[in-house]
Amino acid sequence: MGCAVRSLPLKPGDVVLLDYTLSLKDDGRVVETTSEEVAREAGIYSEDAKYGPRLVVLGSGDLPPGLEEALKEMKEGEEKEVVLPPEKAFGKRDPGKVRVLPARELSARGIVPRAGMEVEVRGERGIILSVGSGRVIIDFNHPLAGKEVVYKVKLVKVLQSPEEKVRGFLEKWLGRLEEAEVKVEDGEVILELPFRLLHSRELVHALEAFASDIERHVEEVTRVRLISTVFERRVEEEEASSAQAAAP
Amino acid sequence: MGCAVRSLPLKPGDVVLLDYTLSLKDDGRVVETTSEEVAREAGIYSEDAKYGPRLVVLGSGDLPPGLEEALKEMKEGEEKEVVLPPEKAFGKRDPGKVRVLPARELSARGIVPRAGMEVEVRGERGIILSVGSGRVIIDFNHPLAGKEVVYKVKLVKVLQSPEEKVRGFLEKWLGRLEEAEVKVEDGEVILELPFRLLHSRELVHALEAFASDIERHVEEVTRVRLISTVFERRVEEEEASSAQAAAP
Repeated sequence: MGCAVRSLPLKPGDVVLLDYTLSLKDDGRVVETTSEEVAREAGIYSEDAKYGPRLVVLGSGDLPPGLEEALKEMKEGEEKEVVLPPEKAFGKRDPGKVRVLPARELSARGIVPRAGMEVEVRGERGIILSVGSGRVIIDFNHPLAGKEVVYKVKLVKVLQSPEEKVRGFLEKWLGRLEEAEVKVEDGEVILELPFRLLHSRELVHALEAFASDIERHVEEVTRVRLISTVFERRVEEEEASSAQAAAP
Repeated sequence: MGCAVRSLPLKPGDVVLLDYTLSLKDDGRVVETTSEEVAREAGIYSEDAKYGPRLVVLGSGDLPPGLEEALKEMKEGEEKEVVLPPEKAFGKRDPGKVRVLPARELSARGIVPRAGMEVEVRGERGIILSVGSGRVIIDFNHPLAGKEVVYKVKLVKVLQSPEEKVRGFLEKWLGRLEEAEVKVEDGEVILELPFRLLHSRELVHALEAFASDIERHVEEVTRVRLISTVFERRVEEEEASSAQAAAP
């Protein structure tokens, strides 16, 4: 009665909040999780990580294909455990992605290569397998390539209204910024922030990333505007107290 | 008829635009000028300098006392030449401001002291007079202290309305920024800027300096707000052309 009923299945472009824990089928080792508790138990807790439901746009390539398939038929609040073979998860291992590079390519950037080290070379992330005379062998396969994995996933929420989506993306990029106020009106997002935050270059970049997500994933929104008060004159004390006195 | 007539004399807090050329009484050497032409003729032109009338708040200490006195009785458009003794210009020379410092105080900051070099030490600007064994002698007097100077000054304009003043301070801090739009309404300044400019830390600082000048010198303004469009969806071509077709 009066409630919008979402029609299954979910489709590309839908914006959802997920809780999940990713582990290896082999030994059960937890690799990634949105739950702070699970992270602590598994010994992979990090202070820098953000825990809590993660915002994902279906069909955007954020999730492995097997997980997307499983999600499509899920309802809000539902939990599922899915086991994915490598080809539906992070791909098979490709021996061609193990490459030999001159060591100076790393040393030129001040990196002293060691086996096991994770590096970024020519825009690709890889793990150093071994260091020889003037050469390093790097595996550019995804660290989980070739692995069978288990996702324990909960579809926390399907974001429906433009406003819900805007708030979701805002939290994704700016966190739970208590000083930010956001309004969505007539297809316009108005974001009000304290001016001093604009001194942070990271925040300016985060705002652009936020706007870019809105542009791509919330078609109802035609404009994102920032409003910031650079200066506001303090009300004179007399005025303030006389205003108080006048109040009933 | 209908024109606001400004009452003489000017008073502290008045905001004015000045053209001036400052030269030494002694030898006529031009030290500073707001005129690009004069700067070129005098051989002191700099590409980094901003030429054109300068905005000054009377009584704020921006100008030597003798020049302020002269200005007080001037009318808009009037020109005057005033000769000022040191005590009405940049002060008498104070021998106590010539100080001996350990050279390491400069070398610690990567400065190799040489006679004639201008340096800033402990927040004061000075000129190195001589460099000895482990010591430097620095003159912290104003470079024009003790000099008789000549100001050729023109009172270009007295800024009257809050809007004129706001535009004046905006140009002082942000230059002739063609992409900036400024409105003054009901005591509120609304400044609209392209979002990409906010990537510049210098601009963010300049906005704060602008707001601080407004706070101190334009009492009619109670608030300065910044508005910036982070993202705007391009109108689809069909819509745009159908809108054109619909136009009379």
